[in-house]
Amino acid sequence: MSYEVKIGLSNKHLHLSEEHIEVLFGAGHKLTPTKDLVQPGQFACEEKVDIVGPKATLKGIRVLGPARPETQIELAMTDARAIGIKAPIRESGKLEGTPGCKLIGPCGEVELDHGVIIALRHVHLSDAQAKEAGVKDKDVVSIKIDGERGLIFDNVLVRAGDKHEREVHLDTDEGNAAGCGPNSVCTILK
Amino acid sequence: MSYEVKIGLSNKHLHLSEEHIEVLFGAGHKLTPTKDLVQPGQFACEEKVDIVGPKATLKGIRVLGPARPETQIELAMTDARAIGIKAPIRESGKLEGTPGCKLIGPCGEVELDHGVIIALRHVHLSDAQAKEAGVKDKDVVSIKIDGERGLIFDNVLVRAGDKHEREVHLDTDEGNAAGCGPNSVCTILK
Repeated sequence: MSYEVKIGLSNKHLHLSEEHIEVLFGAGHKLTPTKDLVQPGQFACEEKVDIVGPKATLKGIRVLGPARPETQIELAMTDARAIGIKAPIRESGKLEGTPGCKLIGPCGEVELDHGVIIALRHVHLSDAQAKEAGVKDKDVVSIKIDGERGLIFDNVLVRAGDKHEREVHLDTDEGNAAGCGPNSVCTILK
Repeated sequence: MSYEVKIGLSNKHLHLSEEHIEVLFGAGHKLTPTKDLVQPGQFACEEKVDIVGPKATLKGIRVLGPARPETQIELAMTDARAIGIKAPIRESGKLEGTPGCKLIGPCGEVELDHGVIIALRHVHLSDAQAKEAGVKDKDVVSIKIDGERGLIFDNVLVRAGDKHEREVHLDTDEGNAAGCGPNSVCTILK
């Protein structure tokens, strides 16, 4: 059976803890949503920070909300290499043993000792969508993308449940390698 | 049948015509080889130039030798987007209708009206190797890469002949999407 899913391309971005939002943007600061994302409750923010690595700085990187228990920086491998950080491929929230970096906001700086990852490619599905696709949470599937740079990505994690909505997340390296644009789709292979 | 090939990762680079070598590096200048590449007769050079697009500049980009009939700039899609150039995916040497850019060398500048491409992924094989792999020049094959970011790239062009030596060329977006390092290999799927 084949099941089609729209591809969401994640540019480099970060999630911040309440504590770090206050250090970077000032005491009592709350994130300012500018655009809802496909995943329920998630939004892009007006706030941006600089991400400083040993070799270089990525300027003006977008914060995504809402605040999270732990600050997490998601880079493509190209970005991580450019600033001299060797980041591992990780599922969101699995930050143990990851490298840190410095963050600079308009009101202060944070020196992180961990939190930089390259996101493990994954597909979000609601419970009903997962059932329809014949997969379940934590399954690992392959996805096929057609076109000039057509390919099959293996090792794609399924994240299914109430807080998820039908969308594949790839980073910019993966999206570019597959020639994806804003309207690209893929098919889940089982 | 499966046939294993080592992966060569191409960072952004350029090839220059004799005319442009003289404009950028001075009259009578000859390229200075620093390292032989896997492909027979091809070499990395000491020479570097800046590549200027409408949005930004890529500083100190490596020239590969020898001189070619036409100047050709090979970027990953991430690089091209960063400097504001919308480059097509092309086989080496197929430069008609491609966008240009400005090049800056120590002795002068060149304003190109074409020549910027994203290289079509390809596999180099000698005639004997192609025969062994069961493919021929201009075939389009798929290649499988194993590991944490395992995938199958479709639409991989075979370039076979006397001037070629067993090696797959991917750009940095493709290499990063597949989690490739300096010792990665792939298998040709037919």
